[in-house]
Parts: sequence; C-alpha cells; structure tokens
Amino acid sequence: MRPLCVIGLGLIGGSVLRAAAAAGIPAFGATASQADASAARSEGFQVHSVTEALHEARTRDALVCLAVPLPAVDEVLRAVAAAAPVARLTDVASVKASVRSAVARHAPHARYIGGHPMVGTAESGWRAGSATLLGGANWVVCPGDDLEVWRDVAELALQCGARALPMDAERHDAAVARVSHLPHLLAAVLAAVGAADGPLPLQLAAGSFNDGTRVAGTRPELVRAMCEGNAEALVPVLDTALEQLHAARETLASRDELETLAEAGHRGRRALQRLRSGHGAELTTELTAATLTGLAQRGGVVTRLDGDTVTARLPD
Amino acid sequence: MRPLCVIGLGLIGGSVLRAAAAAGIPAFGATASQADASAARSEGFQVHSVTEALHEARTRDALVCLAVPLPAVDEVLRAVAAAAPVARLTDVASVKASVRSAVARHAPHARYIGGHPMVGTAESGWRAGSATLLGGANWVVCPGDDLEVWRDVAELALQCGARALPMDAERHDAAVARVSHLPHLLAAVLAAVGAADGPLPLQLAAGSFNDGTRVAGTRPELVRAMCEGNAEALVPVLDTALEQLHAARETLASRDELETLAEAGHRGRRALQRLRSGHGAELTTELTAATLTGLAQRGGVVTRLDGDTVTARLPD
Repeated sequence: MRPLCVIGLGLIGGSVLRAAAAAGIPAFGATASQADASAARSEGFQVHSVTEALHEARTRDALVCLAVPLPAVDEVLRAVAAAAPVARLTDVASVKASVRSAVARHAPHARYIGGHPMVGTAESGWRAGSATLLGGANWVVCPGDDLEVWRDVAELALQCGARALPMDAERHDAAVARVSHLPHLLAAVLAAVGAADGPLPLQLAAGSFNDGTRVAGTRPELVRAMCEGNAEALVPVLDTALEQLHAARETLASRDELETLAEAGHRGRRALQRLRSGHGAELTTELTAATLTGLAQRGGVVTRLDGDTVTARLPD
Repeated sequence: MRPLCVIGLGLIGGSVLRAAAAAGIPAFGATASQADASAARSEGFQVHSVTEALHEARTRDALVCLAVPLPAVDEVLRAVAAAAPVARLTDVASVKASVRSAVARHAPHARYIGGHPMVGTAESGWRAGSATLLGGANWVVCPGDDLEVWRDVAELALQCGARALPMDAERHDAAVARVSHLPHLLAAVLAAVGAADGPLPLQLAAGSFNDGTRVAGTRPELVRAMCEGNAEALVPVLDTALEQLHAARETLASRDELETLAEAGHRGRRALQRLRSGHGAELTTELTAATLTGLAQRGGVVTRLDGDTVTARLPD
C-alpha cells in the first residue's frame, strides 16, 4: 500500500492518520502543534517536523495529505515545493477552488487532487479525533487530470471507512456554502441573539436552541477561516437566506400566514431524510476521467475501487 | 392528590397524562383526535369527550390542563366556561399572554395559571410522547393572583419530573421568541436554502446542517401556529437576527473579518453551556406572591414544594 504522510494532526488530520494506520496503511505525520504532536506520539504514531515528513514522503513516494487550517496552507505548500516538489498531494480543507489556486502558485509541480471529508464536530485538536470519525462520511475527491492520484485519494477515503464523492471544486464550494458555512453563520446568530438578554431566556432553551447553536461551540477562528475563505460562494447563498428571512419578517409583521417558509423548510428537511434513507442504483464501470465527470454531475458516491473498476451509488 | 384532566393528547398532553398517571395522580383526558384517543385507550388511559371530561373535572375539582394546538384554544375555553366555569385551569401552549387574554374573554371565572413545559421534538401526536419526555425540563408556571392553583400546577410539573420556573407571561413570550421560535424560523430557512439546488449539495450535508435543520421536520402547521401566535414578540427578535446577518453579509462581501459574529456566537453558546452545567445557589423560603415575583426576576427554578415552603435553585 502507498504510504501516507499527514501534515497537520488536528481533528481531521488526526482522524485520517489513525484510520489509515488502523487499515494497515504505513502512515506518519507532522504538526506545528506541540500538544497535538505529543498526544499523537503518546499513542504510538510517528510524528516528524514538516520538512522531515515531506522528505520521507518524497523518498517513499507517499501520498501527502494537507490537514492544516486554511491560513497555514500557503506556508506548507512552499515547504512541499522545497522538499517534495512532485509529490502526490491532497488536502482536507473546507474550500477547494482557492486551495487549487494556492497549489498552482506555490507548488505547481505537485500532483494535486483536492479532497474534503464531510465530517466535523464543534471540538478540535488531536484529542477530539478518532479512527472512526470518518466512518460512513462522504469524502469529496475533486476530479482532475491525474487519475492515478485520484485513485490514491479515493482509496484513502475508502480505507478510512468513508465513501469518495467526485465533485468539481466550484460546485463543492457552492455546496458547502449552502450546507456547512450557512449553518455555521445561522448558529452563530442564533447563539448571539439567544444569549443577548441575560440568563432568563436561556433558562427556556430546549432542543431547538440546543441543536441550532451546537456548531457555534466551534472555535471562532475556525468558523472565520471557513466562512471568510469561501466568501465568494457564501455571499449569494446568504443573500437567499436573508431574502427568505425578510419575507418571513414582513409576513409576521403584517400578521399574515407563514405558510411559504414553514412548508419550504419542511420539504427541505424531508429531502435530506429521503436522500439519507435512499439506497439508490448501483453502478460498476471503468475508472476514467469521463466516469468521474458523470458521477460528479449525478451526485454518485464511490463505494468500491477494484483495480481499474469503480463501483458507485447514485442518488434516487 | 388532586385529579388531573388533560384536554388534548398530542405530544405534550399525552406525555403529561402518562407522567402524571405514573406518579400516582388520578388522571384522565379528552381529545378531538380519534387516532390519539384510541392510542391512549389502548394503553389503558381513560379518554372521554371534551364535555364529559370537563364535567368530571368539575365534579372531582380536578386541575384542567389545556394541551390543544393554539388555534383550538378558544373553542375549548368556551367548553370550559360551559361545563366547568370556575375550574382550576392551566395550559401548555407556547405563548402565554394571548392565552391569558383568551381565558379572560372566554372563561373569565376560571382560576387560570399559565404554563409551558420547555420540551418538544420534531414529532407530534400521542405516539411521539412518553412518561419521561418532561423529565428534567424547565416548566414555566406564570405567577398569578391564585397562589393555590400556582401550587397545583407547580406540583404537577414536579410530579412529571420537571422543575417549575416562575416567569411572567410577557417575559416568557419574549424569551421563547428568542430561544424557540427564532430557532424554528432559522431551521426552516436553512432547510429551504440547503435543498434549493437539488441533491448534490445535500450529499455534502453533515452535522452542522443536520442539527441546524432538525426542527424543520416539525409539522408546518405547528411551526406556523407557534410563530404566528407570537408574532408581536418574534418580530423584534427577528430584526436583531437580520441585523447581525446583514452585518455578516457586508463583512464577507467586502472580504473583511468575521470576528464580531464568530466571537458573539461562541460566547452565546458558552453561556448556554455554563447555565446548564452550573449548580447555582439553593434557596428555601415561604411560597408567597412576592417569592414568585422574586424568583421570576432572578430566573430561579423551583425544585421542591413542601407544604407552604418552596425550594428553588438560582442561576450562577
């Protein structure tokens, strides 16, 4: 199996390292965080400096997985260009178009395929992760020119217990604005407004407030990095949300009926539940660039790789 | 123990009936829903017509608990006025000032004390409830002129495993706009926007979207009844949320830093967690109107009633 080098051992990087090692992949890591490094070492993992890790990756032709926070990506890419310029490279960052640009700028010879496992908790750091965090998750693996590295990354996703979801960088960024960054903004607003009048309203908080504010417990700098880093895709989605919320405000202010929003919200929630409960059609075919493009357009999820054959499930 | 008559056997009414019966309170009910009635009867509960139940409540001097949806409150109050005009009366509706007005209009001689147990799920109907749903919940019991009935209702809350929280109707309505109705509106907007671009974005939905949209699974007519019924308190809270979301939009559009919102959201979430983990000071004193007013101002939660003595916990 191709070795794995994980740079950044926080929640996601730490979980990838543990899951890959548990699956038998020779895996090692690096992190700028002393706390994460010693926690990982105490569990028996090899943790080097970033430069050492990249040198080892070059020697062993490892897949390098960047799992550092967005603001640190440029610096690590420059280290990649210096120590392992033609490395097989992926990442787990929550935006894809800007990381692809950063790779083109700072490590133009790397064989880069963007990735993003769709998991997360309000917690962060090595100790918040686990070998099972990625289990059952959809892991976006952007189609690119390099089919061989696409296969490496998809194989890593599958070995970690996830499923590989081919999706273009731009489409991914628009989608996560909708289903990940907007939820973080709304959770922050809800938590801020809910707590703005002292402890009395909070005494009445039950499930709706607790669930709706959970991700506001995320470290503010992580929320900022995600949302600011995807501002271009997030602003139009936020405008749609503002429009609907304004309409609801006018409806309520004129003591009119809130039917439109209540029904649309309910339909949206049901669509999510249908998608999750659906089994979908299964498709087995050759792994080609065209296959990935087709799967990306239809929302197909890769559940198996076998030689040059790919098995995917399509949404109902 | 004073008997209990529950009118409306959906999620909340059904849970109150079961919890009260489990605590040894002689309890019976009524519902306009054939499905809820036969489900309750099949579990051995006495279910009458509304008129029969109210007649029995009058004969046995029971506490009558209205647990019907808001749009049905007026009609049931007229039935109370006809069959048990001076009944001890409470309710579990999600708004308090308008129910108080409705009681003054339709059943002016009833000894009414407003109530609202802060629980709920996206499910509804008898089958969604349980004897334990109310366990550990804060149950708002509005202070009023009738200390004896206040005690009846607080005792019911405690017997159901909840804690009684004295809070004025207006204060309650403003608080639930903040921590219950706003979350429902935001969940609806999030679910609607998330599902507006087909299944592909939903393939990327993980914890933040799932938690943030959970209550959008509530029956739309229940969401409407809550929000429309509390429009007066909800509009200003919604305006605050819109203001913060607009500010975030401008910040993102000008590629500025989202620090204010991210920090405020995180602080709000921490305030909720602190309140929940805090043990607070305990206070034991005589149950008087002044005691309830004082507890209502400080957010005290009644955990025990013993003769004319009340024990409460104050927030930290």
